[in-house]
This record gives sequence, C-alpha cells and structure tokens, in this order.
Amino acid sequence: MVHRIQDIICDELRKIDEVDYREDNWEREEGGGGRSRVFSNGKVFEKAGVNVSVVHGTLSKQAAANMGGGKNLEGEDLDFFATGISLVLHPHNPMAPTVHANYRYFERGEGEKDGSWWFGGGADLTPSYLFEEDAIHFHKTHKDVCDRHEVANYEHFKKWCDDYFFIRHRDERRGIGGIFFDDLNLISKEECYSFVEDAAESFLDSYIPILTKRKDLEYSAENKVWQQIRRGRYVEFNLVYDRGTTFGLTTNGRIESILMSLPLTSRWEYCHEVASQTKEEELVNILKNPVDWL
Amino acid sequence: MVHRIQDIICDELRKIDEVDYREDNWEREEGGGGRSRVFSNGKVFEKAGVNVSVVHGTLSKQAAANMGGGKNLEGEDLDFFATGISLVLHPHNPMAPTVHANYRYFERGEGEKDGSWWFGGGADLTPSYLFEEDAIHFHKTHKDVCDRHEVANYEHFKKWCDDYFFIRHRDERRGIGGIFFDDLNLISKEECYSFVEDAAESFLDSYIPILTKRKDLEYSAENKVWQQIRRGRYVEFNLVYDRGTTFGLTTNGRIESILMSLPLTSRWEYCHEVASQTKEEELVNILKNPVDWL
Repeated sequence: MVHRIQDIICDELRKIDEVDYREDNWEREEGGGGRSRVFSNGKVFEKAGVNVSVVHGTLSKQAAANMGGGKNLEGEDLDFFATGISLVLHPHNPMAPTVHANYRYFERGEGEKDGSWWFGGGADLTPSYLFEEDAIHFHKTHKDVCDRHEVANYEHFKKWCDDYFFIRHRDERRGIGGIFFDDLNLISKEECYSFVEDAAESFLDSYIPILTKRKDLEYSAENKVWQQIRRGRYVEFNLVYDRGTTFGLTTNGRIESILMSLPLTSRWEYCHEVASQTKEEELVNILKNPVDWL
Repeated sequence: MVHRIQDIICDELRKIDEVDYREDNWEREEGGGGRSRVFSNGKVFEKAGVNVSVVHGTLSKQAAANMGGGKNLEGEDLDFFATGISLVLHPHNPMAPTVHANYRYFERGEGEKDGSWWFGGGADLTPSYLFEEDAIHFHKTHKDVCDRHEVANYEHFKKWCDDYFFIRHRDERRGIGGIFFDDLNLISKEECYSFVEDAAESFLDSYIPILTKRKDLEYSAENKVWQQIRRGRYVEFNLVYDRGTTFGLTTNGRIESILMSLPLTSRWEYCHEVASQTKEEELVNILKNPVDWL
C-alpha cells in the first residue's frame, strides 16, 4: 500500500513542481529498507520529501519495554515488522503552508495476538500566514475520512494533534492542527487498515486545493523573513520533541531520510516579536490557543 | 568577574562590528537573573550574543541527583548559586569562523565542603573553511593559559572538547576543537578561579586576530551556501546534544538567551555531499578525525 500511495502522491507533486524527484532506495542493515523521494528547488517546493519504509528485525528488550502497544504480549515476541509513509512539503511561497503527513503500521511477533499490532499517523498543516478557509478545508477533509470509519474519532484525533505538536519552550504549537493518532488497534486490523488507507489516499484532496490557491500569490520580503522564522520553529519542534526524529537519531536510522523533514532554509532572530494587529500576530495567537475549525 | 569580562568583550566587538548591542536585563522568578547583549546584522557579525547570569535558588531533589559534582554532599544542601558567561559569535563572512566560549561556576550549600563547588567551561572554534594557522593560534592561546595553571591540563581539555562537541548522528564534530572541562574542583577554589578568569580574559586574544584576518576575505555564493549548511549542523548539535541548551529548554530558562546561540540563518540540503579534494572535504575529514594542532 505505501509504495502505491507514494507513487500517486509523487506523480501529482511532479506535475505541480515541474521537476522530477531524486529517488534513493536504501537498505537497513538489520532488515528491510525504504524508498525516499525528494524534490529540491522545483517551481513550487523549496524542499519536499516523501519516504516509505518497510523494515523488520528483532527489538532489544529495552526498546520493547519503551514501546506503545503490546500490553498482552509475552516477552519472547521481540520480532517486529513496521511499515509507513511519511511526507513533508515546504513550498517556496510564504502564503502556501507547509504540510506533513505520516501513516504507519507496527506489528510484534505474528501480529495476531490482541495488542500485538497497531497503526499510527496523521496529517497537520503549518502555515506562516493563515487563511481560515484553508484551515477549514484541511480539517473538513480529515473529518470526513474519520466519519467514514468506526475506528476513528475526529474530535479526539484533532485534540491529540494540537497536544502532540506542542513546542513547550515556546508555549506554542508547530502548526494550526490536523489529526494525530497512535496505538490504534480497535475492532479489527482490517477496519483500522481501511481507515489509514483512506486517510493516506485523502492527503492530496486535503492539501492540493490549498496549495493551488496560494502558490502564486504575491508576497513581500518581510513575508519571506516571517516564513523563515516559522521554519526555525519547525526545526526546533522536529529536533527537540518529535518522537520519530529523536528515535531515528538515536537508533542508527538513515539520517538523510530522518532529517528530510527539515526545511531547506530557516532563521533565528534574537527576541523577534510580532507587531500587534497583524497577520503574524493572528497566527501566533492561534498557535497558542488552538481553534476548532469546524 | 563575569560582568567585567562581558564589558571588555562587548566593547571590543562593538568597535569591530560598528553597531551597538541590544541589552536585556532579565530576572529569574526563582532567584537571580542575567544580562544578555546581542549584536544583529552589524558590519562583521550576522549574529553575536554575550550573556552573563548570576542565579540562585533551591534544587529539586531530582535535579540535584542528576548534577555533576556534589559527591560528598548531604541531601540537605539543595541551595545553589551559579554564575557564568557564555558567548557565540557568527560572522557574516564564511571564511571567518564561528566561535563559542562559556565559563561558569556552580556551588551547593555554602560551597565550603569538599565537592560542593566546581567550575566548567571552555572555548571552541567552528570554521566553515579551515585555515590551519587559525586552528593553531586558537589552540596555542588556550594551551598557554592552561600551562600557566596547575589545575588545567591542555591535552585532557582538548580531547574533552573533541568528545563533547560530537554530533553522533552525523559522525562528525561541530568544530575543529578548543578546550572543554567540567566539574573542575582541584587544589582550591582560588586556583580554579584564577585559571577560569585567565581563560575568559584570553578569549579576545584567541579569536580577534583570526577574525581580523578573515572577515574581509572574498568569497563566492557557493562558499555562503556551505557556511549555511555548516550552520544547520550547529543547530543540530545545540538542539539535540548540548547539555546547557537541553537543560535550559526543560527548566523554564529565558528562551531567547538559551537560543541566542543559534545562527541567524541555516540550511538543510537533502543528501548534500562535499566534492572530493576540496576545502569542504578537507574540513569534513577533520570534523571526523580530530587533529592535534600543536
């Protein structure tokens, strides 16, 4: 599934960006591997990466103890299988939001016992300049997906997203929301799979209409500086808090695929403050106080 | 001492940079405070910060248990006093190296018992383009300081520096060396203080002659891109590994002073590789295999 969806998404991005991606097929020493595709300096994206991986191996007891799920597992089920798709798109235009999506499946042992498998993932939007209709469209698309599946709960997943993407030391969120879930193993594997597949397949519908409207808008040098500052915050979240990134950095993952999510360029101004009653302030207020868009 | 040295250093930087610093005096809710001075977009520095702090308070038992030193302390010595000076200078010109220095003192209880006080600190150089004579001058200045003081051991502190500034996930160091030490409490407080004061006072001698030679060299757009990529690595080290930064982010410190060390701008190119037999490759080889410069 992940390779098929990677193909669909990359074909669409290739049309929009008018450049081809660079593809790297990589292997993991301990088992499995992945396929990373990255667009660099095309017409629309400053940097955009879509990565899939299918890995397997044996967990250390330490790693197993630290994992989610697996409550009913016996100690010997240390074999694991994991697969996922992960993407981050950073457009050039500061009016066009950055977007991230990730859908993944994890299984221990044969994946047949209760609690031996689970899904995780979500999608979230990170604008530098907020267009309310974009936030609504993005959330509406994901709510519709959730509403089609008994295993998914939009309200719960939206709150989880706001909680997860919190940059504690800034007292603000990375973006304006989306959905996030983990340890999902309700009803049956088939039901969960069906939801996650639907969510991943809905990614283009959730984002491309927004990108199309914003990618060619006019902007000023000041708008670009503000985008760069927001990208600095993106870096702060990913390097300090993001579980996938910090896990990857400490476990000998493929560094270029793990850090593919970082923007091409970013900026840290000492004591930068937004002026009152500006679009910049409006965004920061929402990052501090998440909004229920629907 | 820290305020006096901050004055001396900032007066010199002001002359070179031909702009004045912004000064922020800040207080810490739990006791004490600091004075941050930052140069932004002057003639020589893209961003340069010099911060001093003098703080005191009561450690949580958890924090005390996680600290260095204090091996002979009883549980009740949770009162602490800490002071230090910290600076990071990022020049515009990619031929001029970034430099960092930090000298600090920590004391628990009355600071009279054995092991109830210690000094830490060091200085390290982070060039994008290596000039061997600069590396030698920087290390020679610090070796001379160490040689003047019985409590200091240059060879030990140089190795400690190479070990500390290691970006594990890149298998390279942040810079080309310097000195680093912690938990220093040999002979007497006076002897240690005398060394640390001498080291801090030698900072300008160690760096300004290098800066003067490099700040006006010609450079290309490619040189600037490489500098930005190296700055990305600087960000990775500081946010992922640096103990002062990660401690500050989790303990309610003044964020703008903690993150003052980050460069104004930085860059992450997917799968960037240095060409063979170039100045860029020469630097990376040294970051992977530290050199004894003297």
